[in-house]
Amino acid sequence: MLTTWRDGAAKKAITEFVEQAAEVPADERVAAFDNDGTLWCEKPAPIQLDFILRRLVAVADESPELRSRQPWKAAYENDLAWFEAVVAAHYAGDDTQLPALAAGILEAYSGVGVEDFEAQANEFLTTTQHPTLRRPYVQCAYAPMVELLAYLRDNGFTTYIASGGGRDFMRPISQAVYGVPREQVIGSTATLSYEDDEHGGTIRHQPVLDYLDDGPEKPIRIWSRTGRRPLLAAGNANGDVPMLRFTHHTGKPTLRLLVLHDDPDREFAYTTGAEQALDQAHRDGWTVISIRDDWHTVF
Amino acid sequence: MLTTWRDGAAKKAITEFVEQAAEVPADERVAAFDNDGTLWCEKPAPIQLDFILRRLVAVADESPELRSRQPWKAAYENDLAWFEAVVAAHYAGDDTQLPALAAGILEAYSGVGVEDFEAQANEFLTTTQHPTLRRPYVQCAYAPMVELLAYLRDNGFTTYIASGGGRDFMRPISQAVYGVPREQVIGSTATLSYEDDEHGGTIRHQPVLDYLDDGPEKPIRIWSRTGRRPLLAAGNANGDVPMLRFTHHTGKPTLRLLVLHDDPDREFAYTTGAEQALDQAHRDGWTVISIRDDWHTVF
Repeated sequence: MLTTWRDGAAKKAITEFVEQAAEVPADERVAAFDNDGTLWCEKPAPIQLDFILRRLVAVADESPELRSRQPWKAAYENDLAWFEAVVAAHYAGDDTQLPALAAGILEAYSGVGVEDFEAQANEFLTTTQHPTLRRPYVQCAYAPMVELLAYLRDNGFTTYIASGGGRDFMRPISQAVYGVPREQVIGSTATLSYEDDEHGGTIRHQPVLDYLDDGPEKPIRIWSRTGRRPLLAAGNANGDVPMLRFTHHTGKPTLRLLVLHDDPDREFAYTTGAEQALDQAHRDGWTVISIRDDWHTVF
Repeated sequence: MLTTWRDGAAKKAITEFVEQAAEVPADERVAAFDNDGTLWCEKPAPIQLDFILRRLVAVADESPELRSRQPWKAAYENDLAWFEAVVAAHYAGDDTQLPALAAGILEAYSGVGVEDFEAQANEFLTTTQHPTLRRPYVQCAYAPMVELLAYLRDNGFTTYIASGGGRDFMRPISQAVYGVPREQVIGSTATLSYEDDEHGGTIRHQPVLDYLDDGPEKPIRIWSRTGRRPLLAAGNANGDVPMLRFTHHTGKPTLRLLVLHDDPDREFAYTTGAEQALDQAHRDGWTVISIRDDWHTVF
């Protein structure tokens, strides 16, 4: 039981919480997990960004006139710093470049059928190597978190993935990697359209964001999907704070987990993008998981 | 097994389909049901309309100036014909009045927390009598459809409610009435907001429609929630046609069910709003369920 976890405050908090949760009716035992940086590695860049960049390069290959425009220019020149700067500016309150990036990404998949999109994501995730960990992306999940998901399910929990990443990007691999069935994956999505034909019709991506499942949208999407307030939530970044705050019940056990990336030898060490979350963890008494101290193994 | 169903083509089609579906992996056995007119009675008016009218009357009670404006005027004067005319005009392509009706309904719940809203819906559905059937609304579900839902689940299906009605309106009673857990209820919803506080915060209705789960939106919402194309879908109206058309697989069994309201003695007899669906059922070979002929009992 939790053999990949070292004895310590985090493991103790988890096992005590699960013991207490046995008193709660099983259908209320809802656990919600962020994905990037919580269930799998998000450095040196989010896995989905690699998928998107390859698509933008393919688009620029076909349309040379786009190579002088963002975001195709940065993708074509492999200028990761441009993407990082746009995201950093966004978190600093400057959205000058973000609309161009979002539009480029949404355009890249416009008109693609959801079943085709999943097949592309599946192919990418199962065959592409992580640039520094030297293993396929589907093997970049954290073993202790995979074990935690299974431990929760063994104790009657339903485990959801509430990620800022793309819902249909994660679904094809969620069962195999995490034991989480596709209907329990919550994430961001483009607006979709349904086009009828004689073979059951096709649902296609439209070049308009439906919602970005991050920040205050996370509690909304968890409610919309489950109709419940979770007993447990786990995240690692500022965008997870509202989901963790929402995980609150009077008279029922709750557990809020925050993964701290403090292990440069086995994974990465960073707190950028998690400053507010770490501060809130301290104030609200959340359980901080130290990758360095709390996990026997990482992958 | 299906004791409330009379022997006949519909019952035969169902049992044969379920037998064939045993060959399909259990996690692909997804069944989607419309609610109003498919799982419970929608005449003389949809059950949720009664709930909305009472709320509009309460608003008009507090704000006399609204009593001369639609939709509060019609609600206050119990002028059901106005509501019927707006909906009929909508289906005839005339949306002159629909925005006022939609705005009135959305305004009526603006700012209400989702947990409060559910408590109000639950109270209404469990305590209000159907105007002609003389039984509480929660007892207006069709017994043969409730038995069908259970029969499907006994055979490894997951049963979803994909209704044009309000998701959060149905959720509080879906388990007790249909055996369908709240996370398997798909329906229409207003846009929601999340407001943080020291007690887990509140998700509130905003006066803007998020989506109306009807027509081509039904396949989109089923996909978004389940990540799957159903093996079985059941409906009764034109708005269910895309969901039934979407229920199509090559090399796997499928079943498309259309409930025909042809029993004026035990329920109601009407085809208004189902003309296109009945026509499509004939062309696509869907299974039409005659309430008069196929069901031993209705409620």
